[in-house]
Amino acid sequence: MGIIVQKFGGTSVADTEKLFKVCKHITKEFDKGNQVVVVVSAQGKTTDKLISEEREITNIPDKREHDVLVATGEQITIAKLAMCLKKLNYNAVSYMGWQVPIITDSVHGNARIKSIDNTKILKDLNNNNIVIIAGFQGIDKNGNITTLGRGGSDTTAVALAAILKADRCDIFTDVDGVFSSDPRKVENTIKIESITYDEMLELASSGAKVLHNRCVEIGKNFNIPIIVKSTFEDNSEGTIVKYRKDLEDLYISGIAKQDDIVRITLNGLENNIEKVYQLFNLLAKSDISIDMITKSLDCKNLRDLSFSISSENLNKTMNVLNENKKILGIKNINCSENLSKVSLIGVGIANIPTVATKVIEALYENNINMHMISTSEIKISILVDKNKSDIAMNAIHKKFIN
Amino acid sequence: MGIIVQKFGGTSVADTEKLFKVCKHITKEFDKGNQVVVVVSAQGKTTDKLISEEREITNIPDKREHDVLVATGEQITIAKLAMCLKKLNYNAVSYMGWQVPIITDSVHGNARIKSIDNTKILKDLNNNNIVIIAGFQGIDKNGNITTLGRGGSDTTAVALAAILKADRCDIFTDVDGVFSSDPRKVENTIKIESITYDEMLELASSGAKVLHNRCVEIGKNFNIPIIVKSTFEDNSEGTIVKYRKDLEDLYISGIAKQDDIVRITLNGLENNIEKVYQLFNLLAKSDISIDMITKSLDCKNLRDLSFSISSENLNKTMNVLNENKKILGIKNINCSENLSKVSLIGVGIANIPTVATKVIEALYENNINMHMISTSEIKISILVDKNKSDIAMNAIHKKFIN
Repeated sequence: MGIIVQKFGGTSVADTEKLFKVCKHITKEFDKGNQVVVVVSAQGKTTDKLISEEREITNIPDKREHDVLVATGEQITIAKLAMCLKKLNYNAVSYMGWQVPIITDSVHGNARIKSIDNTKILKDLNNNNIVIIAGFQGIDKNGNITTLGRGGSDTTAVALAAILKADRCDIFTDVDGVFSSDPRKVENTIKIESITYDEMLELASSGAKVLHNRCVEIGKNFNIPIIVKSTFEDNSEGTIVKYRKDLEDLYISGIAKQDDIVRITLNGLENNIEKVYQLFNLLAKSDISIDMITKSLDCKNLRDLSFSISSENLNKTMNVLNENKKILGIKNINCSENLSKVSLIGVGIANIPTVATKVIEALYENNINMHMISTSEIKISILVDKNKSDIAMNAIHKKFIN
Repeated sequence: MGIIVQKFGGTSVADTEKLFKVCKHITKEFDKGNQVVVVVSAQGKTTDKLISEEREITNIPDKREHDVLVATGEQITIAKLAMCLKKLNYNAVSYMGWQVPIITDSVHGNARIKSIDNTKILKDLNNNNIVIIAGFQGIDKNGNITTLGRGGSDTTAVALAAILKADRCDIFTDVDGVFSSDPRKVENTIKIESITYDEMLELASSGAKVLHNRCVEIGKNFNIPIIVKSTFEDNSEGTIVKYRKDLEDLYISGIAKQDDIVRITLNGLENNIEKVYQLFNLLAKSDISIDMITKSLDCKNLRDLSFSISSENLNKTMNVLNENKKILGIKNINCSENLSKVSLIGVGIANIPTVATKVIEALYENNINMHMISTSEIKISILVDKNKSDIAMNAIHKKFIN
């Protein structure tokens, strides 16, 4: 028997009843003879509540102190969960990030894990303990509490699985796995039985919120199978994220959507790689992420360059462009707001030449205009008007999945 | 200028508005050129809330995990208070017990401080920081979180003052110092300007809830003046606890009361020190604290032995006595319930021979029966019926204080 890491999110541990429900998943693995390490998030709305109290004090909280504040959320959960397991007569011991320790860099609020000491955990596991670890938090080399940012507890769980050479990492959540698209927006979505790390990475960066990129990357690097499953369904099989799919699995894995995208088109840029480099360098320096990029040449050998950004960066981007209009030699700046990016993800895309055609066909049949398209080995993304995006998702889903 | 330690209790830090009020006391000392270390408790009812959630899980929580849970309360306060000070443009840094570290023994829920490392704190103070420390908590030598039990934050504050060789320790609370008696029960109480450590110790163990014994003991051992004052009154002078009183101060410092006392009388115990030793040894082994003890001999050279206990220990005590009745040679066990202990405290007691007489006179004038009396160098305690105890306090207060 091996080591299993299980992670339970905030909804799964929201109250006492749910904590005891979580214990069932834990003790089931333990009773099979496995060694179990459990990672938990803060209960329900705890973190939101702390942040709203913080807002009463200041809108720009000190980052170090913010981490001290929000780290209390997971600390409450680990203590309670250990008590629940003890109540059920299992041995359990809880650790905060600093007790393990989980060493991170010093970027408060968005720290990255540098190393994890597995000594205490292995000793406790060998003494028949269930080990419970606070997700989302660590400690830097100066002894300050740090937090890992969005998706932090998933990252803690998969990183622990890697360092403990676990058989797998189970991510328990409120949905029963990864779906072919968002069931709230698309009809007849199906649960995906298995998906590759690369597909999962593309799905996550295309707007699916099941797993955060960072934990999938660690899973990929250390070859840790990640199973996403429901806390609330007893016989949930979930979705397994791993290197290779099973033979019979779908080669198109999912359709995801990101709203609030803006396309910016620059006219009259000289056809000169130096100017393009200058442009993207200026945007990068202002911390603006560019997503899709297309270019075309007009009859006078001047470029049309388009790129997409998240709408929250629109003002910042326009300032950078206007300030540098002359240097970059830009004639006109156009922007199209209220767009959505719809993405089709699957390892089949590289192998099946008709995929792009079928995507465009789905749009054509529904009279949906395409503002941009970009393709990669395992992904096709298109920009469409936001108000048509749900129709686009449904149409593409129907073409490929059912 | 020197180092000042300030401690603020749960009521003083209950919400954002109060946190900013607390900042005024802190920055006032800092602006005078002092170095300021601040110790805080959990906000308002936070600890109660955590404990009631814990009760949903179990009535006998694991002690280690209980400490992990409740230690979050102070952690929330230190982060928020540091943010408030930064908002006001002061440098501030927060530390949990384990970060300092404050090393304790491993008695979860009632740990005692073994050592405090002052390195980080002194370095921060010398870098112009206000240092904020979570009260009530420490870490044992194995890296487990511990809590100090009742009055824990006061103990943290005075211990820090000792280790930092502070000029004084200010304990901010919701009352303006130590009073000659409980103002809710006794008329015309007066605020005491100064009181000795010994008197304060007697007052605390006699039911006055202003300061816990442990912190007064540390203050006494390290000669740290402790000032008890109000957070909410701007020009509060408070009460100073120190070695010697000022010449003009009252030699009777206070009258305190403890309710829910039971007197137990054993008849027929042989006049034999071995039996008495056996009796108190058995009670001590069952963790039963004995307070007052009196004995008398009857005509047949058999003892009547009476002692007082807290009513919460009554059942346990009766079990021990009944189980060992034969061995101890006890004929009868009588118990008087619903008693209160009223105590008069002051360094004047040893020097003024009429004090005991005046106490008894006060009772006589009010027709109050005395169940037991015990006297020490600086204290006279009497047991009276609980329903007469407020009258007794008032009568004694009037005789000695005004």
